[in-house]
Amino acid sequence: MGAVIPKQFLLLNGRPVLMHTIDRFYAYDPQIQIILVLPSNQIDFWKALCVTHKFDLDIEIVKGGRERFHSVQNGLHVANGEVIGVHDAVRPLVSIDVIAACFELAEESLAAVPTIALTESIREVGYNQSKAVDRARFRSVQTPQCFTRDVLIEAYKSDYLDFYTDDASVVEASGVGIHLVEGNIENIKITSRLDLELAAIYLRNEQSDLL
Amino acid sequence: MGAVIPKQFLLLNGRPVLMHTIDRFYAYDPQIQIILVLPSNQIDFWKALCVTHKFDLDIEIVKGGRERFHSVQNGLHVANGEVIGVHDAVRPLVSIDVIAACFELAEESLAAVPTIALTESIREVGYNQSKAVDRARFRSVQTPQCFTRDVLIEAYKSDYLDFYTDDASVVEASGVGIHLVEGNIENIKITSRLDLELAAIYLRNEQSDLL
Repeated sequence: MGAVIPKQFLLLNGRPVLMHTIDRFYAYDPQIQIILVLPSNQIDFWKALCVTHKFDLDIEIVKGGRERFHSVQNGLHVANGEVIGVHDAVRPLVSIDVIAACFELAEESLAAVPTIALTESIREVGYNQSKAVDRARFRSVQTPQCFTRDVLIEAYKSDYLDFYTDDASVVEASGVGIHLVEGNIENIKITSRLDLELAAIYLRNEQSDLL
Repeated sequence: MGAVIPKQFLLLNGRPVLMHTIDRFYAYDPQIQIILVLPSNQIDFWKALCVTHKFDLDIEIVKGGRERFHSVQNGLHVANGEVIGVHDAVRPLVSIDVIAACFELAEESLAAVPTIALTESIREVGYNQSKAVDRARFRSVQTPQCFTRDVLIEAYKSDYLDFYTDDASVVEASGVGIHLVEGNIENIKITSRLDLELAAIYLRNEQSDLL
């Protein structure tokens, strides 16, 4: 991003992105157990940010692993909920309704993830060729990806595969079907400075809707 | 969008989106033939905007049809280029490099469209089920979609199908393979007020890069 600071610590309306993200989950349920999985070299920086921004929620910090997959495994060792949601730190604009819907559907159906429709045409690419595909057949996947505890722990006993780009793919490989919840379009993953500017616009919009 | 004004006429940095879009193609080639296909009830409004904004480029205006497909057919009746590019009016931020690459590759290979990688995981959905798919197998399609004249005219002799969400799908159905160019991420389709705000950020960024 041209920034030295990891994306989850960049400021969105004056506060680190990650604090916005955590706030959403507390707003959904003030009793929720939050486990923050961070690369070990970021933990001290995070703690310093918490002091600076007077962010004193009770959060368990766990060291991250080599890939996202291993980070989730590490977090699972201390998770104690009956339903566990895995969320990207850099998705601060998930709606509380979406969080609630994912946790509720996972409780009923074992596995639930938020998705939204694709807005652009897509093509499937192969070696030296590509073909049009019906975009209505596909949906873009967000987080939080929610699962009952047993299902998620069992799935993460598998070996890591490159194909595992999210938790739903890991759980599905273990033989459990994934159910879908309608996500919210503002629930973007902040991967560039421009995404951060877009997030600021979404946030401003949200706040003006509340007035 | 909550706006009465069609999206292509909304103001981006004080000028209608469509004028930005057209400017890009003139910047690529000042001799280019521009054909603007508009719903008939928007033509007078567009002409008034041209007066207001002192936009006096020589543009052919053609009445739109029922679907995008029929609008392209109408435009083709007056197109005279050896390579024809079809572009969405609401994509004002296509880069000149992308326009050039598409026209050049179409000249060599008959059909070329810009695409970018998907940034989110996707799932394929079916009746009451869904499954993870490898997002690296898919790319998101932008415009301008460029074709040699004969190829495009021949393809558009077909009957309309719902599946035809872009020109590449129409041309491909006629038996011609589509070649891919790397698109630019700023080349978004403006479909909401928030997209318009994002476009303004991209534009500001582009201008500051030029300083």
